[in-house]
Amino acid sequence: MPLPTSCTQPPPRPDARLADKARERQQVLTKPPGSLGRLEQLAIELAALQGSESPSVDRVHISVFAGDHGVCDEGISAFPQAVTAQMIANFASGGAAISVMARELGAQLEVVNLGTVGEVPALPGVWHQVIAQTSQNLAKTDALTHEQLQKAMNAGDQAAQRAADNRARLFIGGDMGIGNTTSAAALACALLDRRPEELVGPGTGLDAKGVSHKARVVQTALERHGEDREPLSVLASLGGFEIAGLTGAILGCAARRIPVLVDGFIVSVAALVATRQQPGVRDWLLFSHRSAEPGHQSVLAALNAAPLLDLHMRLGEGSGAAVAVPLLRTACALHNQMATFADAGVSDKPGA
Amino acid sequence: MPLPTSCTQPPPRPDARLADKARERQQVLTKPPGSLGRLEQLAIELAALQGSESPSVDRVHISVFAGDHGVCDEGISAFPQAVTAQMIANFASGGAAISVMARELGAQLEVVNLGTVGEVPALPGVWHQVIAQTSQNLAKTDALTHEQLQKAMNAGDQAAQRAADNRARLFIGGDMGIGNTTSAAALACALLDRRPEELVGPGTGLDAKGVSHKARVVQTALERHGEDREPLSVLASLGGFEIAGLTGAILGCAARRIPVLVDGFIVSVAALVATRQQPGVRDWLLFSHRSAEPGHQSVLAALNAAPLLDLHMRLGEGSGAAVAVPLLRTACALHNQMATFADAGVSDKPGA
Repeated sequence: MPLPTSCTQPPPRPDARLADKARERQQVLTKPPGSLGRLEQLAIELAALQGSESPSVDRVHISVFAGDHGVCDEGISAFPQAVTAQMIANFASGGAAISVMARELGAQLEVVNLGTVGEVPALPGVWHQVIAQTSQNLAKTDALTHEQLQKAMNAGDQAAQRAADNRARLFIGGDMGIGNTTSAAALACALLDRRPEELVGPGTGLDAKGVSHKARVVQTALERHGEDREPLSVLASLGGFEIAGLTGAILGCAARRIPVLVDGFIVSVAALVATRQQPGVRDWLLFSHRSAEPGHQSVLAALNAAPLLDLHMRLGEGSGAAVAVPLLRTACALHNQMATFADAGVSDKPGA
Repeated sequence: MPLPTSCTQPPPRPDARLADKARERQQVLTKPPGSLGRLEQLAIELAALQGSESPSVDRVHISVFAGDHGVCDEGISAFPQAVTAQMIANFASGGAAISVMARELGAQLEVVNLGTVGEVPALPGVWHQVIAQTSQNLAKTDALTHEQLQKAMNAGDQAAQRAADNRARLFIGGDMGIGNTTSAAALACALLDRRPEELVGPGTGLDAKGVSHKARVVQTALERHGEDREPLSVLASLGGFEIAGLTGAILGCAARRIPVLVDGFIVSVAALVATRQQPGVRDWLLFSHRSAEPGHQSVLAALNAAPLLDLHMRLGEGSGAAVAVPLLRTACALHNQMATFADAGVSDKPGA
């Protein structure tokens, strides 16, 4: 199974002509120019990305990628590995945060199970594309083999294809994987040339001692990994099944002209890998929220991203992105439905 | 017509027992404790304010108060006064930003016309409670007489009563009034003992020269007003019809146990006056967004408020509050619908 073509071909460009048209329209809507702030910019961006004069976020596709991490052997998480599989069942039965949010948004939610230590039965809305029970312990060896990386990235690309088949106007990727902030911090350190103490955080709830230990584990992994900075080599060495899946999904969405609303730390690291692989991917990314996980700030800065929300969330699952969807919908509704000065007979001559 | 009783009687207190129950529930939902950040806190606050184990923001009442400002004679706005009346018609016909947002939210929208220079015909959804064509020029004399203040505050109290009659779970006040950032800046300077240069901003779009002139007008008004710091005297002297209406509405909502989601600069100044009149009102206020209008920061700080959003908006109309409603709805949905660890069979023992 080769890598998806989106890994090797640059994505298309957004439609600059539609951005201009949208910008002109924002100037004649019944409000002081610029007074809707970032909602104006969102509408303009979505018009360009969707290639439409009437941008819309009605159909949202959410894919949560799940996988276990061998690095849990090092005792780096506050929760046991069994939780990954248990949460897949919780996603499917509608009790998890992202399940509630998807329902409220009327969004399509699917889970892509790439491999867990705990057993997962057949469940509605869950794609079982098991690569192995868990990735390898990245402190000791490459987390994924090249073949595993290909499988995970293709699973992500297939999720992007399903989103395209569902005519999704927006894609949200989510993550579930006990231990994955360790993997994400290691990836970010390698790609941004930062020290573990700068990017490692508490994840699901480590205390200060736990965070120090986790930073040492990441340091060990970085030393093992060495100097290679080729994005997909770094991803295989320090990543995880779900992070590779998310990277494939993001590349696949950009290739298919589907805007991606990026969630928190884990998904942002996948987005960082994707943009290192194909810089044009950046055009297709919108950023939802600033996570409370400290490493997220550096990743956002590297991506030149100013997220819409800062609600001190740190859950993952795509939940931070889901919270931001109504902002995009509001931006579209205002753009499409507001009256112009001419329509409404309102004076648009400042100072007249 | 006396002042509403909410001006002279302290409001009720939120239900601390329901806050405790909500806090306990947040601890057992299937997520790391605290990982939903401010969404958890919102659900807890709404439970206490609404006196309910299942907080909800299904029914939202939006009242936009409109009035013209005599201080426009001083040339302090980028837009002509005629726009106030024109925008009332735009609210009613569905073309304004707040009209679009109310429709998207399924919220009840009404406009309270307290007096405009331009003529306003009978329109659906508009309450005509005209006090005068415009307030007086606050640079030269008190903006409102005591009788006008009573009328405006009663109009606000009546809006709160209509919200109660509609069993609204949340109230949003909005403002429309060319010139009202001048009045709001003057009120904030008087109540916070700040200088005009610190709080005066561009409003709908003044240039630097215009802002300097506006600050001088505010300085003139403050000198005329003198040392009186009694909240309602300050409001009559430096306020406007719509700001007084909003103050009455906020006091009236607190008295009736209706949470208020505060919009930007103008409504925050009305909230400041209301809390100076009745400090217990603060308990009933949630803060939606940080406006781009510079004076807002100081008013928020004085109210010890950390708004949910910072989208560089500066439109008024209640639009910043309306954008934040889905965050409250999401917080409620998560609180009410997420599975507990026990329900979902998910391990809640960190490190187990």
